[in-house]
Amino acid sequence: MSNYIEKLNWRYATKRMNNTPIAEDKLARIVDAIHLAPTSVGLQPFNLLVIKDAETRAKIAPAIYNQPQVKEGAAVLVFAVWATAGEAEVDAYMNQIAQERNVLLETLADFRAMVSGAVQGKSPAELHTWFANQTYIALGFGLVAAAIENVDSTPMEGFNPAALDEALGLAAKGLKSTVVLVLGNRDEATDYLVNAKKVRRPKAEFVEYI
Amino acid sequence: MSNYIEKLNWRYATKRMNNTPIAEDKLARIVDAIHLAPTSVGLQPFNLLVIKDAETRAKIAPAIYNQPQVKEGAAVLVFAVWATAGEAEVDAYMNQIAQERNVLLETLADFRAMVSGAVQGKSPAELHTWFANQTYIALGFGLVAAAIENVDSTPMEGFNPAALDEALGLAAKGLKSTVVLVLGNRDEATDYLVNAKKVRRPKAEFVEYI
Repeated sequence: MSNYIEKLNWRYATKRMNNTPIAEDKLARIVDAIHLAPTSVGLQPFNLLVIKDAETRAKIAPAIYNQPQVKEGAAVLVFAVWATAGEAEVDAYMNQIAQERNVLLETLADFRAMVSGAVQGKSPAELHTWFANQTYIALGFGLVAAAIENVDSTPMEGFNPAALDEALGLAAKGLKSTVVLVLGNRDEATDYLVNAKKVRRPKAEFVEYI
Repeated sequence: MSNYIEKLNWRYATKRMNNTPIAEDKLARIVDAIHLAPTSVGLQPFNLLVIKDAETRAKIAPAIYNQPQVKEGAAVLVFAVWATAGEAEVDAYMNQIAQERNVLLETLADFRAMVSGAVQGKSPAELHTWFANQTYIALGFGLVAAAIENVDSTPMEGFNPAALDEALGLAAKGLKSTVVLVLGNRDEATDYLVNAKKVRRPKAEFVEYI
């Protein structure tokens, strides 16, 4: 499996895509990887929108500053955190654990108190940052999965979250977009980055072994 | 390569580790994966500390609330963002691109202005959040790499950043810790989570296809 490093060298932030689809099984596994990403205390406080519909992609393109990959790609994945969270979300999580692990709810009392404390002890801004952090871990999972699947990808922070939320009706779903991942296939003819050497800070400067 | 999904099902937030080392080549590839993670505009505004030394791990354990994996694991990886950034960091980045891609600095003028604007346009708190987000993508890369290598891991947000920075002398290096990843080997005898079913929100609720 060590050739995953080759795959990570193969991937790059694809600037132009060629309007071709990606295989359904590959997309499904990339979504699975995102779904399997760990989150703080296991709460999974976000949803994933997988937008293949061309009309919807055209509709959201302005909110993503008309970056060409939004239309040229095969799917636009939008990570969107819960706008708020409280006891209801904590209870739903505890009920799911109890059911899936076949344990009594009361055995989860300490864990429940810890999770509830973590949620309730934060200001709305802190809660948003905490939830958003979890979407970045999952974004990392999606990027690695795409590379392993030989699917090109572009992570995007360059968008207007309020405009994207509006275009997708996220407020009504209790969600707020945090980061975007476009999946597709590179257009070797037009992408100026396709043959560019990958630039990373020298490892000796980036990593310190103690 | 589709068995990476099996690996992601195999991984879990290991609660107890067994004090055994992990292979050097595996650790090196996990570090490589983290080093290859993309960052916004490619700035890589963080460093990675890889702490194998037992004495140092004992020293930082209180800052990580004495979670047992810190001592029982094989390596503690600390992600630490730049405390500040300005024109010097942007220049260093541009010089590296120019050198590695063998292009003239002046061809990077537009990109330089964009990166500089992104850095200068943020308050210190916004800059920290932006930089911290990038460490979470890299954490995702490290977690997936560890799973592929059959190395157990535990991501940790539960620590006192100021105390950890102090114990590691990070202020003098211009760094601030954001997140921790412990690598090691699960202790099947003592880890209560070792056989616990993985709990994730139902996919139908988590993912929306459009």
